[in-house]
Amino acid sequence: MEFPKENFSEWYNEVVEVAGLVDKRYPVKGMHIWRPYGWKIMQNIDNYFREIFSEYGHDEVNFPLLVPETEFKKEAEHIRGFEDEVFWVTHGGLNPLEVKLLLRPTSETAMYPMFSLWIRSHADLPLKIFQIVNIFRYETKQTRTFIRMREVHFFEAHTAHESYEDAERQIEEDIEIWKKIAEKLALPYRIVKKAEWDKFPGAIYSLGVETVMPSGRTLQIATFHQYGQNFSKPYGIEYLKENGEHEYVYQTTFGMSERLLGAIVGIHGDDRGLILPPEIAPIQVVIVPIVTKKKEEILKEAKKIKEELKEFRVHLDDRDNYTPGYKFYDWELRGVPLRLEIGPRDMEKKQVVLVRRDTREKIIVSREEYGEKIRELLGEIQKNLKEKAEAEMKGRIKRVGSIEEIKMNNAVSEVHWCGSEECGAKIEELTEKKIIGSPVHEKESGKCLICGKETDNFAYVAKPY
Amino acid sequence: MEFPKENFSEWYNEVVEVAGLVDKRYPVKGMHIWRPYGWKIMQNIDNYFREIFSEYGHDEVNFPLLVPETEFKKEAEHIRGFEDEVFWVTHGGLNPLEVKLLLRPTSETAMYPMFSLWIRSHADLPLKIFQIVNIFRYETKQTRTFIRMREVHFFEAHTAHESYEDAERQIEEDIEIWKKIAEKLALPYRIVKKAEWDKFPGAIYSLGVETVMPSGRTLQIATFHQYGQNFSKPYGIEYLKENGEHEYVYQTTFGMSERLLGAIVGIHGDDRGLILPPEIAPIQVVIVPIVTKKKEEILKEAKKIKEELKEFRVHLDDRDNYTPGYKFYDWELRGVPLRLEIGPRDMEKKQVVLVRRDTREKIIVSREEYGEKIRELLGEIQKNLKEKAEAEMKGRIKRVGSIEEIKMNNAVSEVHWCGSEECGAKIEELTEKKIIGSPVHEKESGKCLICGKETDNFAYVAKPY
Repeated sequence: MEFPKENFSEWYNEVVEVAGLVDKRYPVKGMHIWRPYGWKIMQNIDNYFREIFSEYGHDEVNFPLLVPETEFKKEAEHIRGFEDEVFWVTHGGLNPLEVKLLLRPTSETAMYPMFSLWIRSHADLPLKIFQIVNIFRYETKQTRTFIRMREVHFFEAHTAHESYEDAERQIEEDIEIWKKIAEKLALPYRIVKKAEWDKFPGAIYSLGVETVMPSGRTLQIATFHQYGQNFSKPYGIEYLKENGEHEYVYQTTFGMSERLLGAIVGIHGDDRGLILPPEIAPIQVVIVPIVTKKKEEILKEAKKIKEELKEFRVHLDDRDNYTPGYKFYDWELRGVPLRLEIGPRDMEKKQVVLVRRDTREKIIVSREEYGEKIRELLGEIQKNLKEKAEAEMKGRIKRVGSIEEIKMNNAVSEVHWCGSEECGAKIEELTEKKIIGSPVHEKESGKCLICGKETDNFAYVAKPY
Repeated sequence: MEFPKENFSEWYNEVVEVAGLVDKRYPVKGMHIWRPYGWKIMQNIDNYFREIFSEYGHDEVNFPLLVPETEFKKEAEHIRGFEDEVFWVTHGGLNPLEVKLLLRPTSETAMYPMFSLWIRSHADLPLKIFQIVNIFRYETKQTRTFIRMREVHFFEAHTAHESYEDAERQIEEDIEIWKKIAEKLALPYRIVKKAEWDKFPGAIYSLGVETVMPSGRTLQIATFHQYGQNFSKPYGIEYLKENGEHEYVYQTTFGMSERLLGAIVGIHGDDRGLILPPEIAPIQVVIVPIVTKKKEEILKEAKKIKEELKEFRVHLDDRDNYTPGYKFYDWELRGVPLRLEIGPRDMEKKQVVLVRRDTREKIIVSREEYGEKIRELLGEIQKNLKEKAEAEMKGRIKRVGSIEEIKMNNAVSEVHWCGSEECGAKIEELTEKKIIGSPVHEKESGKCLICGKETDNFAYVAKPY
């Protein structure tokens, strides 16, 4: 089997299955089975979320999946944003339900009726909770594993604060948390402010974390939303201030999903398959015994090695009916960061052979030093993946000055844009691409591509997933 | 607030909320919010499931929630068992779906179409997988937290084997796994074979793990089902034998749910609230500083203690605005197994005060030995809870010889029963109770309570939850 990554879309659609992440043959569109290896990676990511959000004072909760239509309809913009894309439960057994229930497309409308019961006074604030659940969207567009699904493995943090400023500080904290997550997953990104017409239904503004896939298309992998009092008013989430007055709380959310795994697959992988960042790889080191002769002795030694390397996530591939060559191929496909080979000669010399998945470099190291060497190499692989991906992404974002250039550019174009909806619509129409958003941290004077007005605002223009 | 456990039902319904496990005010019947403390206990249980099932060679997967009506209807008995109690998704957005989808009430019908793709030859067997997901049942009976819900946090292991004997051995292994789980949760139980009319829809036979709540009602907390080829035939799950013939696989399942937490709450708790087995308690030791004077010094020391006791799950309650007395009350309510008090006198004497939640015994121990002492006490508490619960359960099962005695007994009656459906129906009718099943490991000759036939089979008769 060949894995040319040139045709990215084909490569991606194939690799997620052959590397054992998912099975796409489930008989409902946009819903896949997580196979053990894929699920283990996602769980490693989830567990890191639990760790980091707990450090930042968030508590984990778990809300029901079903939301009554009556609660859902309280925030008008929100419902308009979702009404075409929710699944409706209309019957229990053979009987029609009195109040229809929907499968959460996100949990604002499930959570906020409860917030109004939980929050009484300023002493209850800030409220910082998160949950890791599946959400459901009736996507009519083409679905794609991890990227556009009808059932989505989802992370959502919800916070409530005393003031708008506190909510703003929460979003700054979210960005700080995100940076740590990006290190863990070795993912490059840019943070953008979404255009007015593209923000989350009900939000005052939305920030998107965007990465660029090898296809040149952008992928939104996290979002931060400032809700202000847009939800607290319809849901009646008030608190008693120290001065005795009542005020509605200010809210934010932070969302992520299995798209993160899609980004890891797409951005780090190569012609041989996946390359997993060591920090989240279910197997960091795979031991492949080279058992041409002295089989028993070498297997025994391999087991000893596994025992010695307990501080890492190690798997010993002692399958009897496969050649070492097949095993190399198999674990490269699955993206294991380091391979450890041990054969008769290595045993004699008290050494092992290490092979890096990212550079395919071979390193011979003595048994005395190999623990330290492996720690060092895993660190290097993690760092190398991040830097390589960052450099590649940089190469996929190009500063341009004309509509024609945007059309010709098969990745992300960066252009001056005054920020108006009118000029934005024109850019999208003329280029047949989308305004992904305005990069948050770059300012530089120039003229809007359409109206010529002086502006320091940029737009990224690209085809998003 | 008082917690008389005498009125068990009231006590239970209240304690699950005031101890911070769930919030029942969600506006859909039978669906509760898991609050952080309750969710953490459930996650500790889930993570133990992951550990133990992985040790026994099971892989974790995650299947979609929605099952097409067409797949669901393949096994006739199964659908009849569930058709009155499933939620139906009929619309996506504003459009009716071509094929209706149901929310899984259990995952046989989602998984087995895939099994028929995954299993090709004897080399693929045994297949042993599990998942931890939420399931949905449109319960029409009264709902009760953890015990009878419409959304249920669920564990299900599914296996496929070459022969009926292999499937039988799997069930033996399941029982072995269950025993370890019961130790971890300190739960007493009896394993029964369910009556013919009470087995899982589609199973050849079902075993139930039953415990007895303080109310005298039984609670089924785990089940093992032998499916034989009842599902593999309609779903076409065949394998190629070594001799070249094709055969349908033999299947089993092992199910558990949040009911386990209900059992822990009900069986171990007392008038002061929860008592959690140390093995799964989110907080094993809570440090309460007694800060009548020397506040700064004592808080500093308490932090040092927390650091020193890192091998345990320790929480330091350094809340400023609560008295030690309130904190004692609060953590007793939440069932923390050990309280550690440190005050000015203890600091001087280089000692701490430990208080057991189960016996309320006070132990003064020097700082030199306290790590070891805590380890020992947590072990004792775990053991004591199990033994106490086992003794209480024994007292709730009574050997009887007449219908009148069964009616008078407000817990579990054990009677000789020939096993026939006719005599069983009569027992249920005359006593207005249910046959819970036949204890698996007890045999003793006697006469059936109804027909008088010689039999070594018993029935447990009780009111089940």
